[in-house]
This record gives sequence, structure tokens and C-alpha cells, in this order.
Amino acid sequence: MSPGLVVEEDVRVRYAETDALGVVYYANHFVWFEVGRVSFLREIGLDFASAEREGTSFVVAEATCRYHAPAHFDERLIIRTWIGEIGQSSLTMSYEIVNRDTGQTIATGKTTQVFIDSETHETIVIPVKVRELFEHALSG
Amino acid sequence: MSPGLVVEEDVRVRYAETDALGVVYYANHFVWFEVGRVSFLREIGLDFASAEREGTSFVVAEATCRYHAPAHFDERLIIRTWIGEIGQSSLTMSYEIVNRDTGQTIATGKTTQVFIDSETHETIVIPVKVRELFEHALSG
Amino acid sequence: MSPGLVVEEDVRVRYAETDALGVVYYANHFVWFEVGRVSFLREIGLDFASAEREGTSFVVAEATCRYHAPAHFDERLIIRTWIGEIGQSSLTMSYEIVNRDTGQTIATGKTTQVFIDSETHETIVIPVKVRELFEHALSG
Amino acid sequence: MSPGLVVEEDVRVRYAETDALGVVYYANHFVWFEVGRVSFLREIGLDFASAEREGTSFVVAEATCRYHAPAHFDERLIIRTWIGEIGQSSLTMSYEIVNRDTGQTIATGKTTQVFIDSETHETIVIPVKVRELFEHALSG
Repeated sequence: MSPGLVVEEDVRVRYAETDALGVVYYANHFVWFEVGRVSFLREIGLDFASAEREGTSFVVAEATCRYHAPAHFDERLIIRTWIGEIGQSSLTMSYEIVNRDTGQTIATGKTTQVFIDSETHETIVIPVKVRELFEHALSG
Repeated sequence: MSPGLVVEEDVRVRYAETDALGVVYYANHFVWFEVGRVSFLREIGLDFASAEREGTSFVVAEATCRYHAPAHFDERLIIRTWIGEIGQSSLTMSYEIVNRDTGQTIATGKTTQVFIDSETHETIVIPVKVRELFEHALSG
Repeated sequence: MSPGLVVEEDVRVRYAETDALGVVYYANHFVWFEVGRVSFLREIGLDFASAEREGTSFVVAEATCRYHAPAHFDERLIIRTWIGEIGQSSLTMSYEIVNRDTGQTIATGKTTQVFIDSETHETIVIPVKVRELFEHALSG
Repeated sequence: MSPGLVVEEDVRVRYAETDALGVVYYANHFVWFEVGRVSFLREIGLDFASAEREGTSFVVAEATCRYHAPAHFDERLIIRTWIGEIGQSSLTMSYEIVNRDTGQTIATGKTTQVFIDSETHETIVIPVKVRELFEHALSG
């Protein structure tokens, strides 16, 4: 099964992201997932600002990362992001982080976002226009 | 089923941990899990430094967080940490973060640590002495 | 000259705060300064939330840190915070971070905060009530 | 006076870098300074790894940032880095962060690095080869 559109984003490991083990601290992979997610949403034309003006926000409800190999200072990485699943009120996004020079997989992961009403913060069905953008991306 | 020993650690939400949504950024919950993990290991008498001198390290292989409610600046939270499962070479730890004043659950999660040889970085069976500490904690 | 009220806050170094040199990454000392600052303002009874409702915010205009000795994972530190200088529209706060067990000075620093109108974001004179809290703290 | 070589590096503001005020948290500018510093040293051909093998490290002894205007999520910034001053055992680097689209200055700052012996951690005179790289960069 094809994951449809896969968006790639480059990052270079910052010294700030390393820890005393000499590798990237495990919470920072979630920051990279966010960088990938933002890049993906920009690519498919989803505009946060106007979505929020129309009353829709989304929040992360669950996040998972599997660590395959450590990343080190100054390494160049590629973050790959694609849509995993489109639910009624939620969206699952998948990520893969690889070392750009060696091709080695650093981490894989998923986040589930839930759509909410910006005012009431209650869960809402994904607005039709937004869903169309996701479905278009998923069908490649 | 009882989770055995549950260690509690207090944190107060730092401004640095919030994001532009006005709530704690989703990667920071993993930092709190680490704070809970370190506190748990200290409580059961596991000494990183001496374990490393004897050639044993461990690394996070997987981490998951479910976000139940947002946390805000200056709120006081309790991080609860306990052992989920003891494998041959791995240990799963479970976490619950609650608001200390309201009792509301903020997040729950798990991390899986894998034991490795400090030199070769290959997976090893959990050393007997360390396993005993975990089993003692699990049996309460 | 006495610095007046000095507020102390304890922190324990998190693994997340270390870097590949095995010591605390240099930007994190500013996070600790913020922890000290918040603690100081709470101590003197300055309530952000109500100040903001009355239309006053403040932002950091300048921050400096001198690094005297490295801090390491799991060390217990004390952050000391006091008022340096009260200007027309600005407040300088001073910080000292010491190792709680050895007494060694880890870092010293200053931040200058400027008071602004929450709406217009223009610099304003420090409101009288707020100034009184600062002057009271400065006179010890 | 010309600052000699000025190295530019692009960053895009991450959601992780914002705080509850809706702007970039004040400690993160120091992370960007580090990104600029690493980029500058790479540009002039200074290789950390081989310098460390030859017994030389350097640590930040002092860091200052002046905040001119807030930066917001998703804005594209340019970090400009150049050498301020070359001392016997220390090097001062200067930074300017500007909004890439508007040209507005976000922050300016300085860091002072001190050269140390990797083993003894004592201050040393800057090695001749390294000094030559800096002097070449400073003379443009």
C-alpha cells in the first residue's frame, strides 16, 4: 500500500539537541516530527491561521517514537512525513527519520491529532475542505 | 493487578515548557517522564554511575504518550512512575502525570528501555543484580 | 550594599538539560533564571494574571550569563534571585546559581525586563502598585 | 570597521520554540547563536573533532542577547555570525538575527569562548593554527 504523498524536510542536528550520552536526547525526535508535520501541512496547502479563524484547531492526542539508531551532533537528517489514517475527527501522521548521508533509519513514529472547536475545545468532525486536502494527499 | 512500587515526583510547569497555544508543548511530557524515571531508579537504589562502570547502559527503544488534558504555566504536577514489564533485555516503565491541585490526569505513557553493553553497544540480558532491584520494586 | 530580598529555588539537573560535552547546555541556564524569576515574583506577591488583566505585561529586553563552572546531570542546584535595579520602565534582576552540595558557583547573570502595555505593546512606566512591590523587596 | 567574514544561516521558527506569549522563548535565541557559531566554524574550516583529538576544546564563558523584536512561529530568520575579538585564550563572536522576509532585526548578541586543554580543562593560549583561521576570517 502506498502512503500517498511523502514530504521530506532536512534538519541538521544541533548541539542543543544532544545529551550527556553524546547522542540526541529522546524527546527531541518529537520536535523533529513536528517540523515534518508543519512541512507536510504547508505542502498540501493547509493554512493553520485561516483554519483557526474559521474555528478549527487540532491537538496531539497521542505520540509514539521507536528509536532505531542514535543521531549525533552535526549529522544531516531527512524527516519523511505522510498520512497514516484519516478518521472522523482525527488524523494519524507517520514519520521516518533517516541519516541523509548513510541512509540509516534513526527513528520512526506516529502522532494522532484530534480536531477541536477553537472556542469550546470540543471534538469536532474534520471540516470537509480540510478532509479533502488530506484525502488528496493520501491518494497520492 | 498492583503495579508494585509507584514513585511520585513533583514538578512545576516552567514558562519555557509552554508553546504558542498557551499549553505545554507535547515533547516536554517526555522530559517529565525522564524526570520520573530517574526518580524511580534513584528510589530503588539503581546507581547509573556504578552500573556504567560495570559495563551496563540502557537506552530508550520506544516511547509513547497519550495526552488527556493540557497543562499550563505554573501548574503543579505529580509524575507517577512504576514498572510495567520486565523482559529478558528490556524494561517497560509506565507513567501518569496528574495536576496536583485538581487531580486531573494530564498524560499517561510508557517507555521501553533496552540494556546494552557500554563498550560494544550490543543488547545484553539484564544483569542479575539489576533485575532483582526491578523485581523487588514490581512485587511492591 | 545589600541586594534586599534574595529568593532561593531548588532545581535538580535533568538529563534533557545536558549536552554531548557531558555538562548542562549553555542556553538552559536562562531557563533556570526564569524559574528563579517566577519564584521571586511569586514571593513578593506579584500576580502575572491579574497584572495582565489590568493591561500590563513585561518582556525580556536583555539577558546575560557568565559561566563559572559546569553543572552535571542529577546535581542539585540553588537559584538565587534578587532585584538589581528599578528603572522608569524597566527592572533588572540578578541571579546566582550554586551547587547545593559543594557551594560552588555555577553561573551568575542578569536579565532586564521592560514593562509594556498588553494591548499596544508600547513601553510604559512601571505601574505604582508594581513598583511598590519591587521597592519593598529591594529595601529588604 | 568591517567585521570581516559574516556567515549566514537560515532557520525557520519551530512551534517547539514558542511560548505561551505566542513568541519565541528567550533562551532559544542562544540555541540559534550556537547554530550560527557552528556554521561559522564549519565555513572557516575549523574541525572540532580533529581539534579535540589534538587536545583543544573550548567552552562558552559568557553569553549575552539583546531582544529587539519578537519572532513568531513559522517565520524564516537569518542568523549572521562574525568574529568580534580574538584574545590570547578567548574568542568573542557576534550575532545578529533578522527576519528574512521583512528585514527586521530580532536579536543581537555575543558569546565569549575560552580555549581549554581537553584533559586538564585548564585555560590555554589559542593554538597557532586555530588562531590563523580566526585572523584570516577577521581580515575578511
